[in-house]
Order: sequence, then structure tokens, then C-alpha cells
Amino acid sequence: MTGDAGTRVAPPAEHAMWLPDAATAHLSGRSVAVRGAGALLDTVRREAQRAGMTFVDAGAQLVVEASAATGPEAFEISRADGTTRVRAGGEAGALYGWFHIVRLGAAAFADDLPTTTHEPQHALRMLDHWDNLDVHPVMGQVERGYAGGSIFFEGGRVRGDLSRVERYARLLASIGVNRVGLNNVNVHRREARLLTDDIGEVVRLAEAYRPWGIRVHLSVSFAAPITLGGLDTADPFDADVQRWWADAVDRVYAAIPDFGGFVVKADSEGQPGPFAYGRDHADGANLLARALAPHRGLLHWRAFVYNHQQDWRDRRTDRARAAYDHFAPLDGRFDDNVILQVKYGPMDFQPREPVSPVIPAMRQTAVALELQVTQEYTGQQRHAVYLAPQWREILGFAPFGDDGPALADLVRGGIAAVSNVGDDPFWTGHPLAQANLYAYGRLAWDARLHPGAILDEWIALTFGHDQALRRGIRSILDDSWRTYEAYTAPLGVGFMVTPGSHYGPSVDGYEYSPWGTYHFADRDGVGVDRTVATGTGYAGQYPSPWRERYESLETVPDELLLFFHHVPYTHRLRSGATVIQHIYDTHADGAAAVDRMIAEWDLLDGRVPSDVFARVRGLLAEQQRSAREWRDQVCTYFWRKSGIPDAAGRVIP
Amino acid sequence: MTGDAGTRVAPPAEHAMWLPDAATAHLSGRSVAVRGAGALLDTVRREAQRAGMTFVDAGAQLVVEASAATGPEAFEISRADGTTRVRAGGEAGALYGWFHIVRLGAAAFADDLPTTTHEPQHALRMLDHWDNLDVHPVMGQVERGYAGGSIFFEGGRVRGDLSRVERYARLLASIGVNRVGLNNVNVHRREARLLTDDIGEVVRLAEAYRPWGIRVHLSVSFAAPITLGGLDTADPFDADVQRWWADAVDRVYAAIPDFGGFVVKADSEGQPGPFAYGRDHADGANLLARALAPHRGLLHWRAFVYNHQQDWRDRRTDRARAAYDHFAPLDGRFDDNVILQVKYGPMDFQPREPVSPVIPAMRQTAVALELQVTQEYTGQQRHAVYLAPQWREILGFAPFGDDGPALADLVRGGIAAVSNVGDDPFWTGHPLAQANLYAYGRLAWDARLHPGAILDEWIALTFGHDQALRRGIRSILDDSWRTYEAYTAPLGVGFMVTPGSHYGPSVDGYEYSPWGTYHFADRDGVGVDRTVATGTGYAGQYPSPWRERYESLETVPDELLLFFHHVPYTHRLRSGATVIQHIYDTHADGAAAVDRMIAEWDLLDGRVPSDVFARVRGLLAEQQRSAREWRDQVCTYFWRKSGIPDAAGRVIP
Repeated sequence: MTGDAGTRVAPPAEHAMWLPDAATAHLSGRSVAVRGAGALLDTVRREAQRAGMTFVDAGAQLVVEASAATGPEAFEISRADGTTRVRAGGEAGALYGWFHIVRLGAAAFADDLPTTTHEPQHALRMLDHWDNLDVHPVMGQVERGYAGGSIFFEGGRVRGDLSRVERYARLLASIGVNRVGLNNVNVHRREARLLTDDIGEVVRLAEAYRPWGIRVHLSVSFAAPITLGGLDTADPFDADVQRWWADAVDRVYAAIPDFGGFVVKADSEGQPGPFAYGRDHADGANLLARALAPHRGLLHWRAFVYNHQQDWRDRRTDRARAAYDHFAPLDGRFDDNVILQVKYGPMDFQPREPVSPVIPAMRQTAVALELQVTQEYTGQQRHAVYLAPQWREILGFAPFGDDGPALADLVRGGIAAVSNVGDDPFWTGHPLAQANLYAYGRLAWDARLHPGAILDEWIALTFGHDQALRRGIRSILDDSWRTYEAYTAPLGVGFMVTPGSHYGPSVDGYEYSPWGTYHFADRDGVGVDRTVATGTGYAGQYPSPWRERYESLETVPDELLLFFHHVPYTHRLRSGATVIQHIYDTHADGAAAVDRMIAEWDLLDGRVPSDVFARVRGLLAEQQRSAREWRDQVCTYFWRKSGIPDAAGRVIP
Repeated sequence: MTGDAGTRVAPPAEHAMWLPDAATAHLSGRSVAVRGAGALLDTVRREAQRAGMTFVDAGAQLVVEASAATGPEAFEISRADGTTRVRAGGEAGALYGWFHIVRLGAAAFADDLPTTTHEPQHALRMLDHWDNLDVHPVMGQVERGYAGGSIFFEGGRVRGDLSRVERYARLLASIGVNRVGLNNVNVHRREARLLTDDIGEVVRLAEAYRPWGIRVHLSVSFAAPITLGGLDTADPFDADVQRWWADAVDRVYAAIPDFGGFVVKADSEGQPGPFAYGRDHADGANLLARALAPHRGLLHWRAFVYNHQQDWRDRRTDRARAAYDHFAPLDGRFDDNVILQVKYGPMDFQPREPVSPVIPAMRQTAVALELQVTQEYTGQQRHAVYLAPQWREILGFAPFGDDGPALADLVRGGIAAVSNVGDDPFWTGHPLAQANLYAYGRLAWDARLHPGAILDEWIALTFGHDQALRRGIRSILDDSWRTYEAYTAPLGVGFMVTPGSHYGPSVDGYEYSPWGTYHFADRDGVGVDRTVATGTGYAGQYPSPWRERYESLETVPDELLLFFHHVPYTHRLRSGATVIQHIYDTHADGAAAVDRMIAEWDLLDGRVPSDVFARVRGLLAEQQRSAREWRDQVCTYFWRKSGIPDAAGRVIP
């Protein structure tokens, strides 16, 4: 149990992220009344105490109360007669309302505070952890983690001291996250046992999260009936397999009554799945969903399925098509408690991809959008890249045209994302990457929030109300995603990263590989023809108007040109520049923007804590080195290949 | 001590390499007399006993005797009056003469056996092991080892059971190897302690080798006075440092009186060295040599020194120049017991490089030629590549022109090579890679031996005298090095391998890296201009006539064209083909040759032991897959870049 987490002091080596004591300074000394019973209301009481508020029965300056006015997570903020009131629909809403008061700062007690109502856009707001119990010799302990080891696991076990997990849960609750996947979706031998022998350890993690309204989920292996149960099959149609899963789930719920459910990566990148038995993904997902259903558990089934043994010589096979080809025919066949978890794009978390066509295609399926807070392909928390602008574009994409619903409204299964935290003192390696975790929670709550406004919130909570600091960090982060895009792979073509590590440039790194991630650059042109007319037909997986927009060179957005078309280097973008000159220009501009980031940051020396300043300064130097390497390798590669010099004469041949 | 190694039976899981019992069947039942006293003569006696010979005092069919007729390792074979006689100059010569009798087979007792004298071309014939005590997470236990773990070390210690090392020592003695380096030249923390705390374990290895006339050497870290001795410097001019080394060496010799000496990789690829103290390589080498000199120990100092933080944008810096630039000015400054160990080429064990110009430049220095038996860049013992033809070309290269001495005559410091064995049941992973180890020993003994004749020896010893088998293996291996060259990087340009692993193609894998391994392919041409006139000047490091031959497009050998010149794809080779068509043709031919290897091997089913057949068959399938991948990636890369189609229409764009 969390016990007196509210009064525990974080060790000095650990940064407080966006909830330093200063973030609640405006509450100190004020009076408060928290009305109603329940564990989460007790959490609010502990938070109020920690903030230095005085509990009163009447005439409180702040009242937090749970009624049944709205949904259980919703709340209303109002002010009258010197009292600011949080009226929540349930105890979770009271907790979220409390943190809204924290975010508001002194404005929460201004007499002109408007009445506002708040309700999350999605009931499921999840963070997945790709943490392993053991340390992988190449991947480390956290797969695609760039912030040290796992905060959950150490030495092959759940940590003895879970106080940091409790502080993490508090931070997640403050941004509205209500589900956490505890372990890597690539389930190795040791981690598989969390489901059975080691469920007692998962219980301890669930207890750390519970006071913060967060339910835990486990990644499990589809082959568990064989590897853990000793059966000779994992066939979803086999009665023994069904019974094994039902029994396993019963045991989990006996230990963790509010257990969230399972996350499964099946028949993907070598993970076992239903194909071995001639079954499809619906058969596989429903097997586990039916074991979970009696307990109202959820089954997150990942749609990240493609042939990773592709032959690069075959230009007709297109990895981008794979998820749609696998899943669209199965729409309507999934049980109600199955959530199909779909990466935002058809490839793999690139800085720029079109939105996955699986999402608009699966109207009879609860789909969750999967984002990646950990910066696998976006600088690995060595580059300052604020991802909220990308996520907002994705969430706001209207697959059926401008008059249709936005993606955020289509995903009935909510939002999931891969976390970026580890046991690093700053949690996220790069201190500025904390902003991504913060923004993820806020956008999962409400996709209409503006990335700049979210950033302002994060800056004020984390560093206080220094306006020069705010302007400086905004100028560094506001466009940092587009800056990263500018100095890496051009025009949506993707990849060009070092194989394996996915850090740093390697223009041909994946060009002749089995992973299906090609750019097809030759001496005449570059890009992947995914049109219906002459290419792989991927563009046809979209509903109108996007299938036509992507199909035509006249209407395809510049930033996705090379994702959909193979064009000559002399092709003119709608911007007016040729493709080759665009490559030269954007890469020069992108690297120069990093130089400016450094100049901006140097102005903040003394305005942020010295450890934050030093860490960010060191990482910016690495970002500068890396951005120049990207610029020079990409530009030299295309100059050597095209023979067309840079009009501005900057490129090294 | 080896004890009764002679009568010990190898476990069935371990292949006997070229010394199965059948290899000495012609000796069984014959009479023998071994005359003289000494440990190595005792070894000969045990060998004779093991072979089933009868010891007699007079009238023996075979007499082995050590006199002082010639050098200590030399021997004469003669036959008269029904007796075959080995007259050796010392006990080592007697042991080598014994194994010569084994190689001769029944011919050793034919009355027309001619009298022949045998003396090794080099006194130092060394095998270096890049074995670590611990298992590196990426490199494994044996750096660049492709045959399993170390036969020396296990679980961070020297193995308890050294019987396999004894059998290895016997195999090495049979091919004339007389020095072994025990541990990786990249000396990690754990391995450094072999020099001090763990010298007792080295003693046990020395004991296993001693009965076979083999002395052991250790790789040591130049920083040992700091890391092991607790000093604050490793400066070669510091008296405490000199004393520390002298004391350390004294302790080693107290434990191992016939200890061979040290191997050092200094100021190379991150290893510490004298540069940190403003000293040069001669200062560094002499420091250790002076500690070793009182014990007549040797100091092997590796010349593999270059800038591995090179900027690919800078086309004037040339890694190929580095060893010469560093070492040629130091000629004459090394102590007598320093041996400068020089890789055969200026780069790094590529399938084709020119011979290193350091060797002819260092006439006042004892230089050792370093070869690589382990197939780092030549198929990693997954490809059947018989390297003796390459080594013989290198050894026969005449740096001062056809009338001058061959390289083999210039290297006063002998021959060294990196071993290819591990704890694999076949010792070398690929059973046919045993031929490389065998050939290395034979060529180190006498560089004038013909690779085909060596192969015949190896086949007969290993598999017996089946003529169909001999023809089959010869047809597979004779040209296998040129086949490998044909389907990999073209015309001496080198690399194009997957970074890190060095296995499989990645045409641009090292093109923008700091390692200095470039091909500079653009849409017009390919190759590195290393001429004096317009390039890096590397060609000028050679004496005449090679400096002129390499400098001129008229005289540069085709196979090294792209090492020395950057030429258009349409440049005509002296063969008449254009460079681009040569690339297409050789890659098609090379891959087709692997198809023929498989057909040849399949004919041998039933003629070799089934485990050998199966292992080789499986590896040939991988070689075929890999050769096709090389062919297609290289050809497609150059088609895309040059835009010039294959005249035979084979290449995929």
C-alpha cells in the first residue's frame, strides 16, 4: 500500500517532474473540504495535506466533492462566494479535478474564475511499458527505453522498494492516465511467468497504482499454454487451451480484483500467435477476451502485423499494406472486450507517416490509437523533440474528409502509448522529454488541447512562472518536431536510420533488408509508389477523399510525397522547390535550427536548476552533432546519386 | 601437466581434425627407436606408442634422433637399409620430423624415399587467440570467433579440464606452430589480471603447451601500471612505471620460465598507449621490451594504428596511410626483442588488399607478418573459403620488384595469425575451415609450399586417400577465395560489409562512418584515389617498382584498381570489360560458383562422416543464400547508381 506517500520526500537525486512542491504553493495555507468516501478521495485528502491546506467543515476556500452529476471521471469547476468548488461525478473525477486545481495555480481562486466542465474524451488512457525483468544484452532492460533501467523491475524481480512507482503513479494520475501496461509486449521467458508464478509480485505493483485510480495490465505470450501450462498446443479452438486461459485469468483476478487485462503482440516480429493453428487474429483475440470477460477485463490486441522476412527485390509487397490487409476483413468479428491497438501509422512510429487506414476501416471494432512517447525514431531522448504537435495532427486527422469525424473521435478503444520513463534521475533522460509524457496524458484526455498551451502548463508547473524561461523553452520546443523531421528522412519516406539501434543516419541502412522499409532511391529519383494506378495500391486502403488525394501528384501533401510516390529529383513540390533542392534546404535549415536551440538554451543559464541546465546543454551538443551528421549524410548521399548540386553550394560531394 | 595425453581418447563429440587415429595407421606395428633425452623426445615416444609402434633398440624401421647437425627445429629425412631416419638438430626438430613422417604416410617407408632436409623459414610461428575470460554481450567470448566459446577459458577462469587444450597443442605442433598468444589483444578489465593475480592460471596453460614445444604469450594492457599497479601514470619514461613492469615480468618468469612474451595493441581503436604521455610507439614498445629482455622474452607490438574517429567528409585523410606514417619514421629505434606485428594489408584483413608498405619500409626492425585465420571478413566460417592461395600471394609478393626478396624473406619477426578455433565440436565451426588452420602452420613453416599440395595433405590426413573425395574437396576449395572475392566488394575496394558484425553485404555500411573505410561511389564512378598525383599519396609509400605500378592506370593490377583509383563505371579494365560490367559479371559468376560447390559436395555424401557432411551441407546452403544476397545488393546498388544496365540483363533494378 502507498501508506504515507503524500508526506514522503523524494530523494534529492530524483527530479520531481511537473509536480515539485512549488506547483502546489498556491494551495498552502488555504482551507479545504473533501467530501465523500472512497480511496481516491482519501488520496485527494493526502494531497491537500501535503500541499499544506487546512481542513475545515464549512466555509472552505476549496471544496472537492464527488456526486453523481456526470460520468465517474468528469468534474466541474466553479467559483462562488469565495469558494472554488470541484464537483465530480465520481471519486476518479474528484482526483482529476484536484489536479486541475493544481494546474490552474493562483487563478483557481480568482473571483472571475469561469465555470467549466471537464470530461475525458476517452475512457481508456493507457501507458504501455516495454520493461523486462532481466537486462537484455543489446536492448537493455527497457526495450526502446532511453532513460535507464526499469522503475518496476530489478535483478529479475519486482523492486523491493516501490516508492518511486508510487510517485510515478501520482504523476500519471495528475495527467489523467488510468491504465498501465507493466511489461514488454515482446514477452520473453522470464517475463511470461508474471502471469502465473509471479502474480504475487504484480499484486504489489497494482497496490502502488490503485490509490491513483490506475489499473494494471500485463503483456502475455500467446504461447503461454505451452510454455507455462505444459500443453502441447496454444490453438484457440482447443478446449484445454481455453480452460487454461480461463483458469489463469481467474487466478489473476483472485489476486488483483481490479486487474485491467492483457496486451498481446501475436504473429508479429517472431512472437507466437494463432496463425500456427490455421486461426486468424479474431480467433486468437477472442480466446483471451472470453477468459477475461467474466471479470470485465480487456484484451488489447496489437495490429502491428507484417512480414518481417520480406524480399527487398519484390517491389510489390508493401509493409504499409499489411495491418489493413490482415485486420480490415475481420471487422465485426472481435468480441466486445477486445481492443485492437493500432499504431498511428502503417509503418513504425516514424517522425512522419500518414495515419493508419486501419482505424477508419474498423468501424465495428473498438480501436485504440497507439502513440510512442519513447522517442525510438525521434531522437531517443538525446534530441529535444516535442511530439505533441505530431500527435495533435494525428488525432485531428479526418479520415472521411473535413466534414467527417476526427481520428480522436473514431477510436472507441481509447489511446495507448509507449512510456518514456526509466530509473534515470530525470525520469526521461532528456529533461525536456518530460514534456512529452505530460502532453501525452493531456491529449489523451482532450485531443483538442493546443500543444503550445500544454507546453505552457508543463513549463509553469515544472519551472514556475518565469516569462523569459517560458519564451525560451517554447522557442526551443514549439517547432522541434518539424526541425527533427527537416534534418532526417525527407518528405515522409521514413527510416534511413541505423539498423538495430534506430539512432542516427544510415540512408541505405534498411534499403536491402527484410524489414520492408525502403526508399528505392536511384540516380533518377526516390520514393515508394503506393498508388493504385501503378504502385502497391496502398493509397486505395483509405476512404475518400484521402484515397484520391494521396493517389494524385497534384493533391498529395508535400510532406508525404515520397511515402506515396516515386518521383524524379527534379519533381517540383507544391512549395515550388524541386525535391532535390528541398532535401538540401530542409537539411541545412534543420541543422541550423538546432544551433539556434542551443543559443536559446544558453540564455536560460541560471533560470533553471543547474542540473537541468547541464543535462540539457550536454544533450543539445549531441543533438547538434547528430543533426549535422544527418544533414551531411543525407545531402551527400543524394548529391552523389542525383549528380544535381545544391543551388546554395553547401553540400559536400 | 599433460600426463598421459597420448593415450587419452577424445570424446566422441569432438572431431579429431587432421590427426585421427587413421592418420598414423601406416605406423602401427612398425618398430621405432627414439634416441636422446628431453621432454619433446618423450612426447615423440608417447606419439609412437599411441600410433601402435614397437620400441626396439636396434634395427628399427623408424629412427628419430636429435643431434646438433642443424638448427634446433630442423630435421633431415633419409632412408637406408630398411630404416627411415629422422635426424633432427634438436628435440623440437625431432618432434617436427615425427609429424613429417605422419604426413608422408606409407611413402615414409618406401625404399625410394629421397633424402630431404627441412628447416622452418621463420623461427617464430605464432597463433594469436582473441579469447576473453568473460563472454562479451555482443562479441561473444572469442572476439571475431566463429566457432563457439574459448577452449581456454570458461566462467571467468581458465578451464579446470585442459585436456582439449592439450589436444589442440598436439595439432598445432604437428603443423609447426611454436608460439601461442592466449588472450584478446583488446585487453578488458578481467583479462588484464592474467598478468598478475591470475598468473597461476596461465601456468596451467603453459604446462599444457610445453610438451609440444609451444611457448605462451600474453596480451597485456599498456595501462596496466595504473589499472593493476595503482600508479597514476603509465608513462614509459617514468621510473616507477619501468620498475612496475620489470617486477611484473620477473614474477611471470618465476612462474613460467619459458614464457614467450607480451602482445600489445596500443593507441589503437581505443586501447591505451604511449601517446597519452607524449611518447611514441618506440618509447612504448621499448619500455616493455626492456622488462622482458633479461628473460629473453619478446614484445610483439602491433602496427594496427589509425584514426578510427575519422571524418568521412575529409577525403584527404587515408586510413591506409596510417601504419606507415606512424611507424616508418621509427625504423631503427626499436630494441632487438621488439617485434613489430603488421597486418598483411594497410586496412583490415580484407579479402583483397595490397600488401602493407610498412614491411618493406622497416628494414632495421624485426617485423612479423600478421594473417587472419579466423574468417572475420571472409565469410566467418559460414562460407567455405580456403585462404592459403591468398596467403601465398602475400608471402610471395616482392616489394622491390621481381628480382628482390619475397615478403616471406623480409619478415625477420616471423609469422603470426589470429586463430579460428573454439569449443565447437569441429573446432572451427565450418569443418572445411580446418584446412585454413592447417595451411597456416604449413605456410608459416615454408611459404613456398603450394596451396593445392597443402590441401592434399590435409585431405589425406583428415579423410584418408579417397581420390574422388580429394577431387571433390579440391574443386570446392581451390578457387574458393577468388569466388568469395568475386561475389563481395569489387576490385579491391574492400568493406561493403554490415557494420559491427562484418558479415553479409551493406554497400554503404561504412561509407559515412568514422572508420575510414570508403568507396566513394557516386553516379559517375567508384574507388579511392590513393595516387601521389591527385590522391592521398598512399601509392608513394611503396618502393619502386610498385609505387609506379600502383600509381598508373596503365599498370595497376585489375584486382586492386579501386583500391588505388577512382574511375568512371565505363573505365575499361585490362581484362577488356568495363568496371560496371565486371561488377555484374563477377557477382553472377561468384554466386554461380557456390551453386557448383553444393553440387560437388552432394556427390561426396557417404564419402565423409555423416556429421561432417551434414554440417558442411547446412553451411553451404547459408553460403548460397549469402552469396546471392551479396550479388543482388551489390549489383542493384551499382545499377541504381550508374544507370548502366547489365549487358546480360540479370540485375534487378
